[in-house]
Amino acid sequence: MLALRAGGAMTKVLIDCDPGHDDAVALLFAARHLELVGITTVHGNSTLDNTTRNALALLELAGLETAVARGCAGPLVGSATHAEHIHGSSGLDGATLPQPTRQPVAAHAVDFIIDQAERHRGELVLAVIGPQTNLAMALRREPRLAGWLREITVMGGSTTTGNVTPAAEFNIYGDPEAAAAVFASGIPIRMVGLNVTRRTGFAAADVARLRGSGRRVAAVIADLLAFYLERQREAFRLDLAPMHDVCAIIPYVFPELIRYGETFVQVELTGAATRGMTVCDLRSLHPGTTLPARLAKTCNAHVALEADSRLLINRVIETILTYP
Amino acid sequence: MLALRAGGAMTKVLIDCDPGHDDAVALLFAARHLELVGITTVHGNSTLDNTTRNALALLELAGLETAVARGCAGPLVGSATHAEHIHGSSGLDGATLPQPTRQPVAAHAVDFIIDQAERHRGELVLAVIGPQTNLAMALRREPRLAGWLREITVMGGSTTTGNVTPAAEFNIYGDPEAAAAVFASGIPIRMVGLNVTRRTGFAAADVARLRGSGRRVAAVIADLLAFYLERQREAFRLDLAPMHDVCAIIPYVFPELIRYGETFVQVELTGAATRGMTVCDLRSLHPGTTLPARLAKTCNAHVALEADSRLLINRVIETILTYP
Amino acid sequence: MLALRAGGAMTKVLIDCDPGHDDAVALLFAARHLELVGITTVHGNSTLDNTTRNALALLELAGLETAVARGCAGPLVGSATHAEHIHGSSGLDGATLPQPTRQPVAAHAVDFIIDQAERHRGELVLAVIGPQTNLAMALRREPRLAGWLREITVMGGSTTTGNVTPAAEFNIYGDPEAAAAVFASGIPIRMVGLNVTRRTGFAAADVARLRGSGRRVAAVIADLLAFYLERQREAFRLDLAPMHDVCAIIPYVFPELIRYGETFVQVELTGAATRGMTVCDLRSLHPGTTLPARLAKTCNAHVALEADSRLLINRVIETILTYP
Amino acid sequence: MLALRAGGAMTKVLIDCDPGHDDAVALLFAARHLELVGITTVHGNSTLDNTTRNALALLELAGLETAVARGCAGPLVGSATHAEHIHGSSGLDGATLPQPTRQPVAAHAVDFIIDQAERHRGELVLAVIGPQTNLAMALRREPRLAGWLREITVMGGSTTTGNVTPAAEFNIYGDPEAAAAVFASGIPIRMVGLNVTRRTGFAAADVARLRGSGRRVAAVIADLLAFYLERQREAFRLDLAPMHDVCAIIPYVFPELIRYGETFVQVELTGAATRGMTVCDLRSLHPGTTLPARLAKTCNAHVALEADSRLLINRVIETILTYP
Repeated sequence: MLALRAGGAMTKVLIDCDPGHDDAVALLFAARHLELVGITTVHGNSTLDNTTRNALALLELAGLETAVARGCAGPLVGSATHAEHIHGSSGLDGATLPQPTRQPVAAHAVDFIIDQAERHRGELVLAVIGPQTNLAMALRREPRLAGWLREITVMGGSTTTGNVTPAAEFNIYGDPEAAAAVFASGIPIRMVGLNVTRRTGFAAADVARLRGSGRRVAAVIADLLAFYLERQREAFRLDLAPMHDVCAIIPYVFPELIRYGETFVQVELTGAATRGMTVCDLRSLHPGTTLPARLAKTCNAHVALEADSRLLINRVIETILTYP
Repeated sequence: MLALRAGGAMTKVLIDCDPGHDDAVALLFAARHLELVGITTVHGNSTLDNTTRNALALLELAGLETAVARGCAGPLVGSATHAEHIHGSSGLDGATLPQPTRQPVAAHAVDFIIDQAERHRGELVLAVIGPQTNLAMALRREPRLAGWLREITVMGGSTTTGNVTPAAEFNIYGDPEAAAAVFASGIPIRMVGLNVTRRTGFAAADVARLRGSGRRVAAVIADLLAFYLERQREAFRLDLAPMHDVCAIIPYVFPELIRYGETFVQVELTGAATRGMTVCDLRSLHPGTTLPARLAKTCNAHVALEADSRLLINRVIETILTYP
Repeated sequence: MLALRAGGAMTKVLIDCDPGHDDAVALLFAARHLELVGITTVHGNSTLDNTTRNALALLELAGLETAVARGCAGPLVGSATHAEHIHGSSGLDGATLPQPTRQPVAAHAVDFIIDQAERHRGELVLAVIGPQTNLAMALRREPRLAGWLREITVMGGSTTTGNVTPAAEFNIYGDPEAAAAVFASGIPIRMVGLNVTRRTGFAAADVARLRGSGRRVAAVIADLLAFYLERQREAFRLDLAPMHDVCAIIPYVFPELIRYGETFVQVELTGAATRGMTVCDLRSLHPGTTLPARLAKTCNAHVALEADSRLLINRVIETILTYP
Repeated sequence: MLALRAGGAMTKVLIDCDPGHDDAVALLFAARHLELVGITTVHGNSTLDNTTRNALALLELAGLETAVARGCAGPLVGSATHAEHIHGSSGLDGATLPQPTRQPVAAHAVDFIIDQAERHRGELVLAVIGPQTNLAMALRREPRLAGWLREITVMGGSTTTGNVTPAAEFNIYGDPEAAAAVFASGIPIRMVGLNVTRRTGFAAADVARLRGSGRRVAAVIADLLAFYLERQREAFRLDLAPMHDVCAIIPYVFPELIRYGETFVQVELTGAATRGMTVCDLRSLHPGTTLPARLAKTCNAHVALEADSRLLINRVIETILTYP
């Protein structure tokens, strides 16, 4: 059985991301609660150029000085898929962000991940909230990496329905081969997928609360989420702006808000209708339990099954409101 | 949009099945409420020899004279999968059924289906509650069949998790190619899958109620379901004997008990971890609605999303108790 | 090891076909040399309506009274693929064939195959020279069929390159699932594929020889093959009208003209670029040999490796010239 | 159409390899005829530790000082496949090689490839004669790499039959995803596969000629090849020790010895029987030609179709005999 340590304040975390509206909120949330040792960027919600610029602009907005390392512009195999219809052409439409004054570090994201994991050996949580290309590349390049990381927390996949296809969620679909390599790596994995994140979001009233706060950062976030909420309505009839990515950070701050069960997750690579699906074995799995040995191959992930979505979103709002 | 007529008493139905404990209950239920024009048998829960003998023995038990036609002993491609660990070596372990005094009709199930559909043109509902081999064979052999059937009601697949594999349900897994042919046939399809049927079953108290009724048929069914319940506990930690198959009959008797939504279902044939999965597009789908055009390819099935499971089981018990 | 009896005059053969120019030549050849117990038709080079009419018209042309049974109009799964660009819109363009005066028999091809195999138990060779749907349906419907047939001779597949795709040959591509069922059936199989048949054809001079013969049937065949040769030039830069189908008949008349080796053949169903490919294990296989046990799973087919193409075509021409 | 420059003496080449007996010969051959700017190692014929040590030991044997960079120990997805039954447990059994006195360079093979390609922009030929993991990693890490390389020369795949499976050749099978990324990269590719290399090898007499030469290096190579020849006999009934890898170097020294045709090659990732196959579109392709536009998607590779095998091996022997 995988052993995930109970979360605690000041966990060291490195966030591998593709901002993206929900990535933006995850970054602000993590920076307030955890020791954020760095940010790496990847293709995904938008191009690598956009996601890297967006990461820097968000840090500028929030007055943060976290190191940003630029990563891979496409998946291991095939070409990149972007989500312009959800996040706009910049990857973060809806507000004008400040021009970044700082640059990415010289190191490539793949090396940056390896270096930080070695430096914080046994202590670093890697939060992978975009396509998993950077991590898969790092694992292949430095086989000791798997042993250096404390654990991975993933936003990606679903125990039920997908978004980009009926079966596949966007982050996994964006690089199925990378995800397959990561889920087979033996590193302890927490996965929170669409089954939880789709229903854990900002309603219009939440956006209004941010906007009405009179705070500068909250107002920008409100503009971003208003745009994002509208796109969710158009694409999925959702009256909610799902906070996919922050859900991967929550367990290290408020561990009681999401319940996980331990199971075997396999990333489907070959299915005509299911490529990029995270096939989770939920037969007999309940929150807090482990899949019975009779059914499971070796469990390789703790998968989120339930969340206190309303409470979780409130915690996120309160955190955003701590920014000036 | 597919048009499914409102169910009504005395719908003409032909049941294609592989009894099997839950098939047994479905047959008894259908025979009481609908015009049961015949039964065809197929490989599945057990061998074709067993499922055919079991169908005849059940009719004997219940004093019914429905015609039984013997069908296919294996899937279109590959070899048959049986569920001995759930249904026992006879396919219907747990009670001693009477020796059948009647024989199957001379016609092969494939021809029987075609003949009955032609005879009851536009009126016949075909209930496919085992692997779909017979129907796929019939569709290929007589292309007019698709136009002759009123609709198909399927027990099979799942909108969520499978049973025989994490992704696949037993009936579809038993002949994925046949199911793919059926779901692409253009015939109006109702599908009730594990997402509903897994939680719609007999508890120990329900079995006790049958047994305590003092009725002969109910007592035999109680013995069968006691066996089946025990196997569910062992295999899936379920304290419920799921009534998968009768759920496909319910809509023609108590249409309000199961809510369907209309969507596009694709049977996965090639996935390494998902072969035999019914990939249902549930993005934005709610009970009683149709998938929005933006997401769906042409909808091809009404898929069960919710059931009043307790009420449904009560109706089934009451029906069994009408037998001597 | 499969035992194929040495061919001999008056072998009993039933031809399952989709005429088709090269089917036409195969029919005329077989009718002269073998006991042709019947012809069944299938979708393939053209629609079932066309291939059935073409079979009847060819018999009319040649003054033959062989029974024709109409079969399946499409593959087990998916929809039919036709080769209009090779065989024209009628499936047999290039000459005006006589109007058939006879009708297909009442029996469906699937039943006709089963009946003839039972009648000629242990003696019947089934020549499958179109998509293998009829045989796959018959095998599933009557499990004893596999034991009744002496052997199958297949035109289909390739040990090397395909035609309809880089990897797949038309007949197998037309119903890969059926072919998979047939190759797994355990019946002794001879397979002659594109590797041999592509280079075994009529050159322009051969067509001229038929035309110059002054014989009625030969003149019509010449017109047909002139059309077909032109299409081969356009489609494949071939200066040859390949006699694919007759190669499956040859071994029962002139067994020395094609050399086979015994190996394991698997029909690829799931490959993105290889669906419908006949994967032949040719490692260490030479004509007349059997694949070494170390490499092979159980051998399931004798696969043609070499032919005396020129001699073979001469024999075919001579046979056509025996018609009035 | 891809433009491959005519080969010429002193082409700059970097060899990415997994020595391996035939890799050893390729290295010695390349070092004599070309400007060998470096060697990178990869998993494949043996473990990365072994292939790296073998590369260094071969340089030691031959008195060469080429830089060696250590690369990836396994494929992008899944785990490594080794060929102990062909190359022995050291990856280079059959002779005792000198202990290497030098070490690999500090740079990882992925960085080394990128650095050399940038330094020799437009001039470097990358010879990939093992699994293509290093190159795929480098392409993803540095998107400009594709534009920096003059071309890639690959030993891998087959236009016909495989070796590790009936359809797949060992190098491609060892990392199909990497090969898929490489073949889709847009870099001009020369591919020589088993169809040519399997029949281009050392016979026992050739080994004897090396041994009888009285030269030190040739004697060691003779011992290695005697071992390798014996294993080929056991595994494939081959009386030839195939010189797979040197065939990828030949075109830059003796361009007339191998004839290529230009076509579209796709690496099969999903096939149940064909994973790792290089699907080459050979319909209408002849040596020296390009696939007609009607058939081909954009051509992406020049594929070897024929070789003067005897002459080629003679040139290789003569080259080995130039060593002391």
